[in-house]
Amino acid sequence: MIRATITVRSNQREELIDVTARVRAALQMSNAADGVVTLFVPHTTAAITINENADPAVQSDMLGWLARLVPRNAPFAHAEGNSDGHIKATLVGASVQVPVVGGRLLLGRWQGIYFCEFDGPRERQLELVVG
Amino acid sequence: MIRATITVRSNQREELIDVTARVRAALQMSNAADGVVTLFVPHTTAAITINENADPAVQSDMLGWLARLVPRNAPFAHAEGNSDGHIKATLVGASVQVPVVGGRLLLGRWQGIYFCEFDGPRERQLELVVG
Amino acid sequence: MIRATITVRSNQREELIDVTARVRAALQMSNAADGVVTLFVPHTTAAITINENADPAVQSDMLGWLARLVPRNAPFAHAEGNSDGHIKATLVGASVQVPVVGGRLLLGRWQGIYFCEFDGPRERQLELVVG
Repeated sequence: MIRATITVRSNQREELIDVTARVRAALQMSNAADGVVTLFVPHTTAAITINENADPAVQSDMLGWLARLVPRNAPFAHAEGNSDGHIKATLVGASVQVPVVGGRLLLGRWQGIYFCEFDGPRERQLELVVG
Repeated sequence: MIRATITVRSNQREELIDVTARVRAALQMSNAADGVVTLFVPHTTAAITINENADPAVQSDMLGWLARLVPRNAPFAHAEGNSDGHIKATLVGASVQVPVVGGRLLLGRWQGIYFCEFDGPRERQLELVVG
Repeated sequence: MIRATITVRSNQREELIDVTARVRAALQMSNAADGVVTLFVPHTTAAITINENADPAVQSDMLGWLARLVPRNAPFAHAEGNSDGHIKATLVGASVQVPVVGGRLLLGRWQGIYFCEFDGPRERQLELVVG
């Protein structure tokens, strides 16, 4: 099994961080050939998604709308003030899979892989496994 | 590794398209035995989900409520007018996994696999990998 | 391929049930070593997620906010009165993957695996496959 841990540094409370190049580099170093790469976030107020890598407005629209769907200051019981981040993490998801063919990610033309920070800034990890 | 690409033609802007039979056919042609099938959508305004295959009202309720949660005409920055589709794609997700046992999808009795179009009509692809 | 079925008994209409220990036990009995475990929910009004295992308020905040985002009594067409459950199932998702290293789940310190009941109480299944 091929495995790597990618460290991600977030700089804001809510942020989408393009990790596509780092995932590609980890695949290349591991000589992965054909299979499926699993990306797994070992945190409870962060997530992983695949979305457009061209216009940065897509990412700000996404973060803005998620904040409207799950407002930070809603009357939550959890005392740490980050229930919005926990809920967004479940809506977006802790894992995603991408096919790997001939060592390359089978991403569509406009797709990038985004680490989703919902309670930063922090140092985070992203686990990568090719099975 | 077993791999197939399924072409999906959508006919409306927002549509759930049952691809269960096409996934089954691809599995059969590939002689897949035991494992997990990964279905991956290489687009940024489409997604994949598993839900009820009996009453079509479930699908219209789903599309209607998603449109209410993420309205098309909200004040988004992205100029292409499809930010709602990008956000729905992230909420629903670009990949799903289903166990395969003896060449058969381990779906529950009421489950079907749905390609989710959020910015059609278009010709789309769905990538299938058994690992 | 390693495979197990975990039976989950829900006691309320909407409930998050911690299944981490049962997933760990199934992995141990199967002597799984390295790979990725896929957890798959064969139902259409239930889902699977990974989130905080410490403060139970996170789980009640999650269920409460999901019920606000997708109210049970919205004007849905599906006559069974559980369209909210179907929609939540698609938003949260039917499958999740967790890396397995040396037979152990590579979960983060605060992560637990939660079966999400959205139309209980019922007896449910959770399929586990290590590929």
